[in-house]
Amino acid sequence: MRTPERSVELTQVTEWEGGRVRKVQDSLAAEEPLEIRVGGVSLTVTMRTPGNDLELAAGFLLTEGIIQSPEQIAGLRAKAPENGLRSNVVEVELKDSEFDPDELRRNFYAASSCGICGKASINAIRVRGLRQPDTGFRVEPEMLCRLPQALRSEQEVFSRTGGLHAAALFDGEGQLVALREDIGRHNAVDKIAGWAVLERKLPLSQHVMLVSGRGGFEIVQKALAAGIPVLASVSAPSSLAVKLARELGLTLVGFLRGRRFVIYSGEYRCLPAGHAD
Amino acid sequence: MRTPERSVELTQVTEWEGGRVRKVQDSLAAEEPLEIRVGGVSLTVTMRTPGNDLELAAGFLLTEGIIQSPEQIAGLRAKAPENGLRSNVVEVELKDSEFDPDELRRNFYAASSCGICGKASINAIRVRGLRQPDTGFRVEPEMLCRLPQALRSEQEVFSRTGGLHAAALFDGEGQLVALREDIGRHNAVDKIAGWAVLERKLPLSQHVMLVSGRGGFEIVQKALAAGIPVLASVSAPSSLAVKLARELGLTLVGFLRGRRFVIYSGEYRCLPAGHAD
Repeated sequence: MRTPERSVELTQVTEWEGGRVRKVQDSLAAEEPLEIRVGGVSLTVTMRTPGNDLELAAGFLLTEGIIQSPEQIAGLRAKAPENGLRSNVVEVELKDSEFDPDELRRNFYAASSCGICGKASINAIRVRGLRQPDTGFRVEPEMLCRLPQALRSEQEVFSRTGGLHAAALFDGEGQLVALREDIGRHNAVDKIAGWAVLERKLPLSQHVMLVSGRGGFEIVQKALAAGIPVLASVSAPSSLAVKLARELGLTLVGFLRGRRFVIYSGEYRCLPAGHAD
Repeated sequence: MRTPERSVELTQVTEWEGGRVRKVQDSLAAEEPLEIRVGGVSLTVTMRTPGNDLELAAGFLLTEGIIQSPEQIAGLRAKAPENGLRSNVVEVELKDSEFDPDELRRNFYAASSCGICGKASINAIRVRGLRQPDTGFRVEPEMLCRLPQALRSEQEVFSRTGGLHAAALFDGEGQLVALREDIGRHNAVDKIAGWAVLERKLPLSQHVMLVSGRGGFEIVQKALAAGIPVLASVSAPSSLAVKLARELGLTLVGFLRGRRFVIYSGEYRCLPAGHAD
């Protein structure tokens, strides 16, 4: 899990500490735009940390409901550099000839704009065919408590730059399966989902995903699209994230710190039978 | 600065602590979509924490380059609730009759998609007419060090939910001028910018903005659009944020913690003359 070279940039900065001023070398988390094109048409541009770009594109297509399985991808490649500049474009070809790129783009923007109230947002998600994740999957509470340390010890770019979000995928025994970092929380999750697309691991029905930031609505939606049954974060979820997790049966854990956590939805997957609803 | 009632939602959750399980009441940061319509046409939908919606819309228009001054806004109102549900729509009318809503939307999407490399992104920002903020503004390093505590002591929803980002505006003496919270980092900044639009305080040329999250490219862009000369954060900036700050002459401060901070750009505004570049 080496850090891709493009993930970090060095620069000279000025440090002020208690009145003392000095020039120091600093590592910055790289941020660059990535354009995702489908059938030659620009679908979206996201500000991301370079690295694992094909995973990011494949994951985005999955978690935004544009594809449901790897078989729908006919081609996936990074555009060649132009004039010596890296292109920051991933080009996707979809198999299904009924995909009209312009129609796709219209629908994509329409879907992003669907939610006039939170209830409408959840309905729109439901219409997309997201289902309840595996109800037989269980995790031990003590295992959950070990995950943040496991993530931190593997999170390479963060320790150098202090500036990256991470998403980590663990199996039911708490073994780290995949870890991705990005300046954007959503992108780190999309890179994990895209890893599963490209490695033919979908659905991730026997896995826990831990994210470094908060669990918002879109993170819950993306976890559900990948079939993940347990989503944990070290921070707080939002109200709409909790509503969506409850309606679609995802186990949502927050404030996972030390030997304490809060369960917002789907308690039964991580509590002994007597305690679960 | 009372917390709007819609910013927090209560729910029952399950707490696990060292093997002990109990039901507790928890406060969640509210998250709902907000649609911004210009001339009846949907421009964008953002997931936001309800409250200060008109500021959010006005700030978004400013920081995304759709308006440059308050005078261009002819009307700004929250759409009336429908069927008892709050509508989560802000409707904007612009004065200038040359604004064709469909054209505006096309340009807006085109602008979001402009950046094929970081350099192109910065050029696109420059083309929008953003200028170097006030070069005469100065702040004391010791004053900067007091800002994080001042923000925390005023950040109401965070202390109840643990789940919100904040953007705070201070004057040159470190007095808090405005504070806004949101589940989205960008939205907190847009609410501050929108406050300035609606209160006719633009440009914010004698102010420091402190943000609770990291300083990414889009946060730097939004600060520049509001004319802010000093942007500080308790966390790390990204590579592209530093490049943009250096090219356009914004003072960018990161890792503002205790009596230490790092200056990535525009040192002269916060260092004694002998130390500045």
